[in-house]
Amino acid sequence: MRKTLCDTLGIEHPIVGFTPSEHVAAAISRAGGLGVLGCVRFNDPDELDGVLDWMDANTDGKPYGVDVVMPAKVPTEGAAVDLEQLIPPEHREFVRRTLDELGVPELPEGEQKQDGVLGWLHSVARSHVDVALRHPVRLIANALGSPPVDVIERAHGHGLLVAALAGKAEHAVRHVDKGVDIVVAQGHEAGGHTGEIATMVLVPEIVDAVGDRVPVLAAGGIGSGRQVAAALALGASGAWMGSYWLTTTEYQQIPGNAATQQALLAAGSSDTVRTRIYTGKPARLLKTRWTDAWSAPGAPEPLPMPLQNVLVSEAHQRITRSADPTVVSMPVGQVVGRMNKVRPVADVMADLLAELDETIVKLSDLR
Amino acid sequence: MRKTLCDTLGIEHPIVGFTPSEHVAAAISRAGGLGVLGCVRFNDPDELDGVLDWMDANTDGKPYGVDVVMPAKVPTEGAAVDLEQLIPPEHREFVRRTLDELGVPELPEGEQKQDGVLGWLHSVARSHVDVALRHPVRLIANALGSPPVDVIERAHGHGLLVAALAGKAEHAVRHVDKGVDIVVAQGHEAGGHTGEIATMVLVPEIVDAVGDRVPVLAAGGIGSGRQVAAALALGASGAWMGSYWLTTTEYQQIPGNAATQQALLAAGSSDTVRTRIYTGKPARLLKTRWTDAWSAPGAPEPLPMPLQNVLVSEAHQRITRSADPTVVSMPVGQVVGRMNKVRPVADVMADLLAELDETIVKLSDLR
Repeated sequence: MRKTLCDTLGIEHPIVGFTPSEHVAAAISRAGGLGVLGCVRFNDPDELDGVLDWMDANTDGKPYGVDVVMPAKVPTEGAAVDLEQLIPPEHREFVRRTLDELGVPELPEGEQKQDGVLGWLHSVARSHVDVALRHPVRLIANALGSPPVDVIERAHGHGLLVAALAGKAEHAVRHVDKGVDIVVAQGHEAGGHTGEIATMVLVPEIVDAVGDRVPVLAAGGIGSGRQVAAALALGASGAWMGSYWLTTTEYQQIPGNAATQQALLAAGSSDTVRTRIYTGKPARLLKTRWTDAWSAPGAPEPLPMPLQNVLVSEAHQRITRSADPTVVSMPVGQVVGRMNKVRPVADVMADLLAELDETIVKLSDLR
Repeated sequence: MRKTLCDTLGIEHPIVGFTPSEHVAAAISRAGGLGVLGCVRFNDPDELDGVLDWMDANTDGKPYGVDVVMPAKVPTEGAAVDLEQLIPPEHREFVRRTLDELGVPELPEGEQKQDGVLGWLHSVARSHVDVALRHPVRLIANALGSPPVDVIERAHGHGLLVAALAGKAEHAVRHVDKGVDIVVAQGHEAGGHTGEIATMVLVPEIVDAVGDRVPVLAAGGIGSGRQVAAALALGASGAWMGSYWLTTTEYQQIPGNAATQQALLAAGSSDTVRTRIYTGKPARLLKTRWTDAWSAPGAPEPLPMPLQNVLVSEAHQRITRSADPTVVSMPVGQVVGRMNKVRPVADVMADLLAELDETIVKLSDLR
């Protein structure tokens, strides 16, 4: 099974690494895995195009992928300016007051407020697909729900594979019925958007549901060779890892990530919370004074996607600028408890593979 | 590692099965695992004594264990009659009204109301330990927190091993520091009392935290040989399984279990909920109209342990009597999605072991 996945993707090791950083994604691909670049932050497709040019120049000809977000249920469409008008004043007031109470400074005079992340609008996600098809991308993954059938067919027409994340077996079957080539079974313990069923239960359930039709990657709770071995034991053809790359040396190359890394290094496996405050859909975040404020009595209910992220986008900008580790707003899985050291991607990969091999030898010795 | 656990416990296979049914526990031991009988339901120690006599006569001389509940934080002590007085009238009224709305009939005239489960009072749990020490019990497990040091020492004095469940690494270390011999790392997806960290993350964390001091059993999400293999890959010395035995033939021998089994067989992995309504502490239950009623707007907050179970004990009696699968109140893990057929314990065990072996062979072939 492992060979099949690696052959299909043209990679050496059954490790797929999702990351918002092109530096990390390129390093994962260079190390023999498949680096998958998260595109949701690119409101401007031209910016993504430039970053993929950089990927093409920095992956030594190794395959890489991109991750877009096309939610199964299409959220409200619209430009940033229109979406702003749908946000209730009480929510704005709560965010303003909370940031004051947390001691997060205002943006300096003249610094432009960024728009909220719009990558989960289908219009924007489709522009990401258009850009990706102009590059030698091997895989397009969709983070929420099945991608539209025409997108799958266009990708196939260009020789690309399509992956989709699933938190339930019925979602996985729907993906495969629509033509998806690889299912990512993402358990409750994962960072970012995540369901309620844990990886241990979800992976064999999805493997059994899709049968021989497509390979399944296990996601959620994987940050060691033992956990990769467990994923393979559960029937997965490989591991999809997101959180674990956030404390790599390469991740530091994005400005403003130092405080985030500091917070991640200090956190234990209990220091995450599943909440709708990041995007409007349940996602696991690092537990900080910012997430605490949203679960305190009197805090408003988060808004639906995409409004919630528009609401908090300036807050995210201010939080990043403040460089205060106690307020960071960061998706991460429970595996954050294992993320205790900053290391280069190549070292992380080497350790994963060595421990995977050692674990398989130990298991074989039990027979 | 597997050999060590089996040698230590005097069992053939690294499978420990927790169950409230003596019929199931004895069958697990006879099949080469370690059956562990849950004692919490025995308000009367003499009744437990009689059941252990039965176990002694029906385990073919194979080892078995018992599970008592001594919460780390000692709850309110008191006889049933005193505890009743601590229950707010609004809570009683909510239960009465809810049962009416769910169509659960009153107890027939003359049928005695049972007391709530008092097994989580230390006084009652200690009486369980006293009884267990009069029988050839191999293991005493404590389901909530570290057992008191004097209980551990008494057990050791009688040549028994002591196990304790842990949902966090710091709890596991505390257990071992107090003299516990085996740690059960119980993940979020488990049935009954359970924490927030998933098995995939928790097991290696606890294995690393306790090092070579004691063996660790993985609990939560295990109902197939692949999942046992995953548990071993994560560094566990064996599996602790509770839910999966609830759909065995032997479990039917307790009257009133038919409706429960019917509900479990129909449920999927999404059909559980973690709630305080069973005991006052967070426990995963089958999602039914009864659990839904407690999470509806206007439902009261559950009471602390042990009051909550005293509050709902007559409700549980009425629910069991009603034999309506849509209202059962039953602890079970997410693995309920795999529980689709009633089979004898011996068949379940044989399948687990065959698939475990097959999985290890498959993994070995990947090298």
